Amino acid sequence: MILPKANSLSPKQLREVTSIVGEFDCQIQPIAGALRTIYAIVGDERDDLMINRLEGLDYIDRIDRIQSPFKLMDRRSDLARGRLKIGEMTLGEQLLVIAGPCTIDPKNPNYFYETAAAVKEAGAQAIRGGVWKPRTNPYSYQGDNRSLDILMEGARRTGLPVDTEVMDEAQLALALDAGVTILQVGARNALNYSLLRAIGRAIAQRPEVSVLLKRSMHMGPLNEFISAAEYIAAFGNPNIMLCPRGTTPTLDGYRNHPDESATPLLKEKTWAAVVVDPSHSVGKAAYVPAASLAAVAYGADGLCIESHIEPQKGIGDDPKQAITPETLKTLISQARALWELKRPEAAETQHAA
Amino acid sequence: MILPKANSLSPKQLREVTSIVGEFDCQIQPIAGALRTIYAIVGDERDDLMINRLEGLDYIDRIDRIQSPFKLMDRRSDLARGRLKIGEMTLGEQLLVIAGPCTIDPKNPNYFYETAAAVKEAGAQAIRGGVWKPRTNPYSYQGDNRSLDILMEGARRTGLPVDTEVMDEAQLALALDAGVTILQVGARNALNYSLLRAIGRAIAQRPEVSVLLKRSMHMGPLNEFISAAEYIAAFGNPNIMLCPRGTTPTLDGYRNHPDESATPLLKEKTWAAVVVDPSHSVGKAAYVPAASLAAVAYGADGLCIESHIEPQKGIGDDPKQAITPETLKTLISQARALWELKRPEAAETQHAA
Amino acid sequence: MILPKANSLSPKQLREVTSIVGEFDCQIQPIAGALRTIYAIVGDERDDLMINRLEGLDYIDRIDRIQSPFKLMDRRSDLARGRLKIGEMTLGEQLLVIAGPCTIDPKNPNYFYETAAAVKEAGAQAIRGGVWKPRTNPYSYQGDNRSLDILMEGARRTGLPVDTEVMDEAQLALALDAGVTILQVGARNALNYSLLRAIGRAIAQRPEVSVLLKRSMHMGPLNEFISAAEYIAAFGNPNIMLCPRGTTPTLDGYRNHPDESATPLLKEKTWAAVVVDPSHSVGKAAYVPAASLAAVAYGADGLCIESHIEPQKGIGDDPKQAITPETLKTLISQARALWELKRPEAAETQHAA
Amino acid sequence: MILPKANSLSPKQLREVTSIVGEFDCQIQPIAGALRTIYAIVGDERDDLMINRLEGLDYIDRIDRIQSPFKLMDRRSDLARGRLKIGEMTLGEQLLVIAGPCTIDPKNPNYFYETAAAVKEAGAQAIRGGVWKPRTNPYSYQGDNRSLDILMEGARRTGLPVDTEVMDEAQLALALDAGVTILQVGARNALNYSLLRAIGRAIAQRPEVSVLLKRSMHMGPLNEFISAAEYIAAFGNPNIMLCPRGTTPTLDGYRNHPDESATPLLKEKTWAAVVVDPSHSVGKAAYVPAASLAAVAYGADGLCIESHIEPQKGIGDDPKQAITPETLKTLISQARALWELKRPEAAETQHAA
Repeated sequence: MILPKANSLSPKQLREVTSIVGEFDCQIQPIAGALRTIYAIVGDERDDLMINRLEGLDYIDRIDRIQSPFKLMDRRSDLARGRLKIGEMTLGEQLLVIAGPCTIDPKNPNYFYETAAAVKEAGAQAIRGGVWKPRTNPYSYQGDNRSLDILMEGARRTGLPVDTEVMDEAQLALALDAGVTILQVGARNALNYSLLRAIGRAIAQRPEVSVLLKRSMHMGPLNEFISAAEYIAAFGNPNIMLCPRGTTPTLDGYRNHPDESATPLLKEKTWAAVVVDPSHSVGKAAYVPAASLAAVAYGADGLCIESHIEPQKGIGDDPKQAITPETLKTLISQARALWELKRPEAAETQHAA
Repeated sequence: MILPKANSLSPKQLREVTSIVGEFDCQIQPIAGALRTIYAIVGDERDDLMINRLEGLDYIDRIDRIQSPFKLMDRRSDLARGRLKIGEMTLGEQLLVIAGPCTIDPKNPNYFYETAAAVKEAGAQAIRGGVWKPRTNPYSYQGDNRSLDILMEGARRTGLPVDTEVMDEAQLALALDAGVTILQVGARNALNYSLLRAIGRAIAQRPEVSVLLKRSMHMGPLNEFISAAEYIAAFGNPNIMLCPRGTTPTLDGYRNHPDESATPLLKEKTWAAVVVDPSHSVGKAAYVPAASLAAVAYGADGLCIESHIEPQKGIGDDPKQAITPETLKTLISQARALWELKRPEAAETQHAA
Repeated sequence: MILPKANSLSPKQLREVTSIVGEFDCQIQPIAGALRTIYAIVGDERDDLMINRLEGLDYIDRIDRIQSPFKLMDRRSDLARGRLKIGEMTLGEQLLVIAGPCTIDPKNPNYFYETAAAVKEAGAQAIRGGVWKPRTNPYSYQGDNRSLDILMEGARRTGLPVDTEVMDEAQLALALDAGVTILQVGARNALNYSLLRAIGRAIAQRPEVSVLLKRSMHMGPLNEFISAAEYIAAFGNPNIMLCPRGTTPTLDGYRNHPDESATPLLKEKTWAAVVVDPSHSVGKAAYVPAASLAAVAYGADGLCIESHIEPQKGIGDDPKQAITPETLKTLISQARALWELKRPEAAETQHAA
Repeated sequence: MILPKANSLSPKQLREVTSIVGEFDCQIQPIAGALRTIYAIVGDERDDLMINRLEGLDYIDRIDRIQSPFKLMDRRSDLARGRLKIGEMTLGEQLLVIAGPCTIDPKNPNYFYETAAAVKEAGAQAIRGGVWKPRTNPYSYQGDNRSLDILMEGARRTGLPVDTEVMDEAQLALALDAGVTILQVGARNALNYSLLRAIGRAIAQRPEVSVLLKRSMHMGPLNEFISAAEYIAAFGNPNIMLCPRGTTPTLDGYRNHPDESATPLLKEKTWAAVVVDPSHSVGKAAYVPAASLAAVAYGADGLCIESHIEPQKGIGDDPKQAITPETLKTLISQARALWELKRPEAAETQHAA
């Protein structure tokens, strides 16, 4: 939809606009209102170049886009029919909980093994554990390849799938070779399109592998976030979970700005599961249970929570934001109770859409 | 705490700083670290003028304030001992629900009377109804004094206390004279200190009157928000409810940025009750139940919800964001169930603090 | 423009939509695109109630508004022809500079008199000075009626118009009676519609009085800001200057988020003069000259700057953010040089629009 | 600096805190104030793990960090003495201008050759041209290796250094092999630490190569932005230019939130040159000259501007935001005039720091 600065386009302007959209196989249809005439773009308006060229005309006030820019991830695409399985459970049939420490300590593997066993006992269906870590400070601990073996040993001992973050192609290859089945893309790399493409390509023929795509700290939940997922899905594997984890903090004193409320906005536009990370949203163990329940209240399909048997012994964010498996157990029981309470509505919404 | 730009203050700079804080009865205590010396302000550092003068020195990097600027509203003040009653109920003993239409339609009073009866039946303990309305557009409906009579008639019929927004001293006087016992300060006037003072003064001797103070759209939850409440409390009536209602929208597509997560931050600093307004936060009826449950998950003491028996017949925001009394009833039942689930924790927190 | 959630409206939905807009004398015109049909609202779509009712329909994805909600302030309105005079100078013919202390010290009037003389000598055409002050902290200095006499004595001595902030009707009456000709509305009251209306009414027949309307800390520059000005203009006096002064700080370490860049956005939509306040934007004297030049680079018509002959002796924000008259003099000379450099472009833009 | 929730730490809490910081070779020094005791950390407090562990204690209100987390990039480090040369010019001696199209069109190389010649003639000292492009939409044009040859041919024809964005290690190797001497890291990859490390390593022994590091859309200008540069500098090559280019848009209607005002904040903390990108900040050709002058007003060392001889023929952002070489020429002449006007102050600041 083209809105001119003046009340209407001059004949010469209209010819120019028509010629531009014509190059992209679109037509212009004027809509004469009482005070002003606007101009609909009839055809497929999704080409950014066409929009850029129109926005470059100095007599144009603004362009309102009507179509969503993503295809496969759209709620109405054919991919909406599938259901994602993580280990034994199917998303949508119960609340998924992924839990474990922020960072695996390669010098003290038992913390990981014991935490993994404890979060399984508390009700988690998958285990998280950081092998490599993106750190603001270049002199902080950045991870260790040995932790990958520890992660996989934890997988074997618990029988649960494991989730770890990969930041480049070398880590991606190592993780897949080792048998990691949940690849995490961190907030800092959510717009690293080279990495997203590499992941999409690497898992195209690996239906047992899924991706937990964290939201970048400044992404709008719709266009940018879902489009990032589209980069992966374009290669053919639709096993994608979108993970709100807080955005750039503005007013309130959390580590990030909690954004579990983005969940229903995402679910209106895409069929992808939404798995919220309350730990990074609020950044402090004491607030994690509240944020987890809030995520479920907003309709989340799952939670990804940092947990450690002795948070103060953790080597990443755990001392600050990990909850104990005991707290996790209470949290899971409350969250599942709330999830069941809301289930009839969720089913209805699904049906109505 | 004074942080100089250089690794320490020169003797001359230290003399100047000492002299400035001395005018405010404070002293300077240097703290020599391994790499840098910083300077503690010993004494009552709450005077803004002292801080402004220190910040004006070009060799100062920054001042970190240690003390909170509010007194009466502080969680540790004597006022923390009281409990606020709204009608028959006591805040903290159960979840407060205030509900009713955005705006009373003076031409169709029955919508209000029927809505009031219906939300009472659904479980609300107080009724809201807008008599005067702040509107971005100066040519939109701005309210009508006749609606005040309708509001009070609704109060009489239901036997419940009523809440309405006042925007200036004339409206304040009319509302108090008519018998309104919950005065609402809207987001746009949350920093209108003349109005806050006028309210504080008017209700100083009126213990039956309380104030629902909405958060401004850009207020930090602690300093600015709690300080605004301090303006009212300074006159002696501590019946104040703080009302998060969404802040300036940034990334996510809600009317405002939902901020129910501010609740625990507020409760760590002040004893005041926190009553969340989910209707303005999300701005769309379909999201109101989720936002209400999220508020309870974060520990809210109450909810203020727009409801209308026929939302499409409302004259303010109701067609867009009011829920029906039927939806309200389900919401209240779920919210109270969740509130009970979390109650043991809340009690414990109260005790620990 | 109505965008349905599905690819088009069903016949029943179309009837409902048509009936709603019909109540507001509008019609619906469908626009069939290749992938989707959207629906134009033909007629005057500015009534918020109509939009609210459409947004309340659960099969509507969103409404894109085509028309601006303000009338008198619109760049194309008849009021665009007038030119505002402040004292001897006409806005648009040279760069306006208003300067003076944040707050007048009633115990030390000479600071004000000497500052007023010095900023006049430095090139300012109007004097600012705070009589009453909005303060976050209720226990900070809040102003003093005696300062009004000092302000007016400064006006007499310099022969220049004076600017002071008014926060309620009582202050408004006092200021007008005393002879203040530039009324300042502060950021905290920019959405205080009762005050804006009171000012509009009070100056309707006072063409010698103008208003400096500061932007609220979270206002979008177009709809909300210009609409606030419309509240004043609606009574007949169009002497309004819009004053960007920084918005809620997000990422960068200033007192506020500098927003001089809002200037060209405002000037594309309204004829009102834009007078930027660099002092509150950056909040520190050292950055004020840079912010002032940036404002002129973006096309500002004027600057409102805090200045004090001895900033450390000031009683408001002056110790931190006031510049000396000497710095002001250099700043004004550079700013006017830049203003002249850009003048041919400004004239051209004016012509083209 | 440790601020407890209560007025002071209990003996047991103090022992725990002392024990934690002791593991990191730090000590605790209590500072008894009139109302409250706080606790200084004496030693090197820069280890994130120590801070995380302290923040994890439930009796701690907050930790105020005193030391900056970056070392080499600190304004006071030894690296501050060097001066960066780009082609023939030395940063700081005159205003650097890098200009050229957003994206090289591999099918129409002449647009690039002619633009390169024209921006050189207009006064640019380096040429920019996108070979590979990060695009939100996975189906948009993503770049072409053939454009690298066109870029280098432009370098040969003009004799100027060229700047292009690299997004992964493969592109990095290709660009360095071809002779690119200004590597651009885009906003989306500003926190891609794997890439930053790869670049640092690849150019460690290549003093003729420099990096233009764009600010991510949500980075604070100090800690995160300068720390990202530290990742590169840690390998030994200090040729780094920091490039503000707008942050996540909040209130104002630009493509991004213009952030040229971050320049003086950066320059107070680091010795690195600041080169502002006005094109992405404002996102529209008409605003680029104003934003460029504003950047110079705030003390920028250079500008990186999108320019194209026929913007409407460009294939990336050019139709919308590129200016013509003719506009560029006027802009450069005004910007250099302003830069000279401010030069004495800049020299003084440099000296004073």
